[in-house]
Amino acid sequence: MPVERAEAIAVNRERLSINQATTMPWSLAQAIEGYARAGVPAISVWRDKLAEMGVEPAVRHLGEAGLVVTGLCRGGMFPAADAAGRQAALDDNRRAVDEAAAIGARGLILVVGGLPEGSKDLAGAREQVHDGLAELLPYAREVGIPMAIEPLHPMYAADRACVNTLGQANDLCDQLGPGIGVAVDVYHLWWDPDLERQIARAGERILAFHVCDWLVPTRDLLLDRGMMGDGVIDIPKIRGWVEAAGYRDFCEVEIFSERNWWQRDPDEVVATCIERLATAV
Amino acid sequence: MPVERAEAIAVNRERLSINQATTMPWSLAQAIEGYARAGVPAISVWRDKLAEMGVEPAVRHLGEAGLVVTGLCRGGMFPAADAAGRQAALDDNRRAVDEAAAIGARGLILVVGGLPEGSKDLAGAREQVHDGLAELLPYAREVGIPMAIEPLHPMYAADRACVNTLGQANDLCDQLGPGIGVAVDVYHLWWDPDLERQIARAGERILAFHVCDWLVPTRDLLLDRGMMGDGVIDIPKIRGWVEAAGYRDFCEVEIFSERNWWQRDPDEVVATCIERLATAV
Repeated sequence: MPVERAEAIAVNRERLSINQATTMPWSLAQAIEGYARAGVPAISVWRDKLAEMGVEPAVRHLGEAGLVVTGLCRGGMFPAADAAGRQAALDDNRRAVDEAAAIGARGLILVVGGLPEGSKDLAGAREQVHDGLAELLPYAREVGIPMAIEPLHPMYAADRACVNTLGQANDLCDQLGPGIGVAVDVYHLWWDPDLERQIARAGERILAFHVCDWLVPTRDLLLDRGMMGDGVIDIPKIRGWVEAAGYRDFCEVEIFSERNWWQRDPDEVVATCIERLATAV
Repeated sequence: MPVERAEAIAVNRERLSINQATTMPWSLAQAIEGYARAGVPAISVWRDKLAEMGVEPAVRHLGEAGLVVTGLCRGGMFPAADAAGRQAALDDNRRAVDEAAAIGARGLILVVGGLPEGSKDLAGAREQVHDGLAELLPYAREVGIPMAIEPLHPMYAADRACVNTLGQANDLCDQLGPGIGVAVDVYHLWWDPDLERQIARAGERILAFHVCDWLVPTRDLLLDRGMMGDGVIDIPKIRGWVEAAGYRDFCEVEIFSERNWWQRDPDEVVATCIERLATAV
């Protein structure tokens, strides 16, 4: 590899965070070791993997490896069919805030939830999201954990998140005030004709920038995301908009890929993330 | 069946058009006969099926069956990697206009196309769509065929249609003037937080109203649409918005369903469409 290219890759690596879903076969302990071994400075952690390892060992390992924790995935899932369900979601979200604080995460990523079981009331679900956020926010502020609303692609409106555009997420932030921001994920938002304007509007509310790619064809709604550069998203353009809005923090790679990247040696996946951050982001 | 329910179904049936993709195993001749046999008053025709049958025999059969042709599917696919590709698309669109006129279709449905091969320039593709429409429109006006831009779900932005919201389609109509309108398909648009407003804005530009349902889970991006009532879309609410905007024409059922409805006896599918139009639309 030419020296200049190697240098460019090393410089870019300093901005890399890997969401551990990208290396799904690895436990959290393995991910911490694997990312540190490759010189990746930051990680985003999933709660199920964290629970598997235990919070205290995770905190110790993360500290020893010197990794920044860019986010904890995930809070949210606010809408429910009844008050008991909504209360259970709030309780779980408070635990997520506590876990984020315990591992020193920079923020809690929120996948807000879709339609309650049996419901077709999308506007009502969106109201429940607003109300759940409003109820959770004082606690997150008190603990000192910023929350990032992640608008999800409209194909997840029914079952994962009824906040489907950055415009909606910005509206929620306007309504709710300090302590809440947005996660901009190119996979979910690249199609939006209003994206450039909404990124500018988000400004310093951008708490996370997630990258992967949209494959053509996409064979599965959930688990067929591509590595940056393998799809059709103009990621550098969107990164430019995000940086023009003032964001200068990590680029987080988050790839759900059951049939491709999850089948490979995670060390190879990490090496590919590092290289592609320099060449395709 | 109680008399009142049977009457409700019969009354609703007068508003039913079936898009022949819903009965994929049938040829156009079979679809014409099958729909007429069930008392369905209208059909939307696909060009490949029309070519298979031949335009003249189709015109004769459609006339004998007394079916209204609510639309011809489809024109569009404007963006291309080079001028020759764009010209070929325009030529094909002019043939589609001619075919729509020949079979007496009320309009030509446009799936506008996505990114050209090898391109990541979504804004550029959208410009190509505008330019293609602008170039085609005088011919369609001359022939007297209204064209309906069908915004497609954002999950098709890359490979099928880069017009992904009704707002975008309305903007195009504003720019292009008379002779062009929109097709409102609940499957593509149900998630849009701005939908009610954009339907009101579309007003008399609404040239077609398409129904099916969004299944949870959706197992395939293209071929796993649901029968009305089997999914999570509040279709009556959206139909109400469309009617409040002044639309009083046919409800067209369009279901791509490789593993379910396309596997069934098409007569059963038609009977189910008739019943569900009364109970779930």
